[in-house]
Amino acid sequence: MSTPLGEFELIRRCFMRHREPRPGIALGSGDDCALLAPQPGMQLAVSSDMLVEGRHFLSTVDPARLGHKALAVNLSDLAASGARPLAFTLALALPRAEADWLDALAEGLYALADAHDCALVGGDTTAGPLNLCITVFGEVPSGAALLRSGARAGDELWISHAPGRGIGDARLALEVFRGTLALPGDAFERVRAAMELPQPRVALGIALRGVASAAIDVSDGLLGDLRHVLALSGVGARIDADALPCSPELAVQPLALRRLCQLAGGDDYELLFTAPAARHAEVLAAARAGGCAAARIGRIEAEPGVRIEDRDGRAVPVDFASFDHFKSA
Amino acid sequence: MSTPLGEFELIRRCFMRHREPRPGIALGSGDDCALLAPQPGMQLAVSSDMLVEGRHFLSTVDPARLGHKALAVNLSDLAASGARPLAFTLALALPRAEADWLDALAEGLYALADAHDCALVGGDTTAGPLNLCITVFGEVPSGAALLRSGARAGDELWISHAPGRGIGDARLALEVFRGTLALPGDAFERVRAAMELPQPRVALGIALRGVASAAIDVSDGLLGDLRHVLALSGVGARIDADALPCSPELAVQPLALRRLCQLAGGDDYELLFTAPAARHAEVLAAARAGGCAAARIGRIEAEPGVRIEDRDGRAVPVDFASFDHFKSA
Repeated sequence: MSTPLGEFELIRRCFMRHREPRPGIALGSGDDCALLAPQPGMQLAVSSDMLVEGRHFLSTVDPARLGHKALAVNLSDLAASGARPLAFTLALALPRAEADWLDALAEGLYALADAHDCALVGGDTTAGPLNLCITVFGEVPSGAALLRSGARAGDELWISHAPGRGIGDARLALEVFRGTLALPGDAFERVRAAMELPQPRVALGIALRGVASAAIDVSDGLLGDLRHVLALSGVGARIDADALPCSPELAVQPLALRRLCQLAGGDDYELLFTAPAARHAEVLAAARAGGCAAARIGRIEAEPGVRIEDRDGRAVPVDFASFDHFKSA
Repeated sequence: MSTPLGEFELIRRCFMRHREPRPGIALGSGDDCALLAPQPGMQLAVSSDMLVEGRHFLSTVDPARLGHKALAVNLSDLAASGARPLAFTLALALPRAEADWLDALAEGLYALADAHDCALVGGDTTAGPLNLCITVFGEVPSGAALLRSGARAGDELWISHAPGRGIGDARLALEVFRGTLALPGDAFERVRAAMELPQPRVALGIALRGVASAAIDVSDGLLGDLRHVLALSGVGARIDADALPCSPELAVQPLALRRLCQLAGGDDYELLFTAPAARHAEVLAAARAGGCAAARIGRIEAEPGVRIEDRDGRAVPVDFASFDHFKSA
């Protein structure tokens, strides 16, 4: 049985754990504003992401996983900037304030927040269609942030991944939910975890400071996000499609589906980054330090555009659209 | 005719004006994170507010006014902390991306942002039920922020207001929209402007640094918001109900409605603050510096609770609930 809560009761019950001052946070939640105090020489990295029911998650999602994911996609932006998480705000629109559901949401949220030492310092709750908007704050030494604009011709192109896993699994899980294919139960649970429990590559992003020349996190699909880097850096890229890391579940799918999931799947929250070839070993060391793996999947070229080849050097057709919230089917 | 826009086209067209670095902002929108660089000795004040269609605004609202209000309610939190606006992020869920509507929204948003020198540095857009979530960032000298916890017995209690106007007009306008009363057209337009175009008291908040002992902005209703200050300060208050500033439109309403609108109306975005009686003249000077007026409406007492009296010393019944998004009718 779930108990309906009032607004202030809801906040007190579920979202007031991080009230004590801590380094970098002079005042947490409970006043009109939180007060952040970055260390001298540090800049504050800021990003906002909004998750909408039916668009970013299904109404049936486990609320603990939803809490995890809402914060994870924001931490992923900090990771792509090489910033260390400091704090976040949560604005939450809810159709009903049900205690059990909110307790579970808070559990998933705080578990990830505590794992990254990131304090909830404020926000808002209101009645409305289910919507979670998180704004995260991280610290990065002045001038050390990883930007999208630093890729140079000759750089190697990399993607992070979990050891033994790849990219594209979140999209594969989405296709199962859509009913376009079926997977055995345990295989489904593994790709579903990629969709519902993405692991933001925060430690990798920090380890890549001074090593990577550009970085972005893959949220809308590898090709679409790569194009942002290429446009801001004024370069092009060549990708070896068969070098893209691949899970066992995705590896056995038809080639066209595999390519779609890997190149345009979205919702991966891995870091796509570039680094000078001379930094190859440092990149691999950064991935180890970051508790993940990194695959070299291509290189940056002066010529604009993206060229994709398979391992035999044959062109792979690039007819995947990047995810667009107002145009995708 | 309104043109449907794609996600990235929408962002480029409507929300990319503030891209150049400026003092305090090392990197604006367009990367994974914005980079804020507060001046040495400054803390960063942070607040998030979410506006939901049908809850915080009507579906028929002028989009320019909606853009204004979405930012205004957030700037009001900075004002209540005594912080100077620096930047904000906007996360926007939209049923459809219609160019005309978005252009108007952006106009209202940027007009207020530019008036307060506050840059849009990032955010998110997605399809979904109409929802605007803004997170604002302001600078305040370390230790100078106005908090809710500083009210002391003997302090005077103040409310800001526009010269010649009062508090409660936003609620009066809401009652007209609800059909519980009617107002002549020009009177309606004036109270409607209070509801749709609140003026955040940013300059007053800054002028009150070192003068006010506690402050909060009135969003949920004067009594409800006052109780937050009293609870965190460990004190009580006595209010002179007839000292509450009142517009001509509200003054002619039945007394019970006037009291309801003024004491529990909500959506006022005026500053409710306390200051030692010895600072009386400085408060009035701060109001002048802030381009508004301030009315002394009572005093802080050691005894917990709120006592409300009229000008003849008769008790005014306190049976107004503060606004609660999950409980109010």
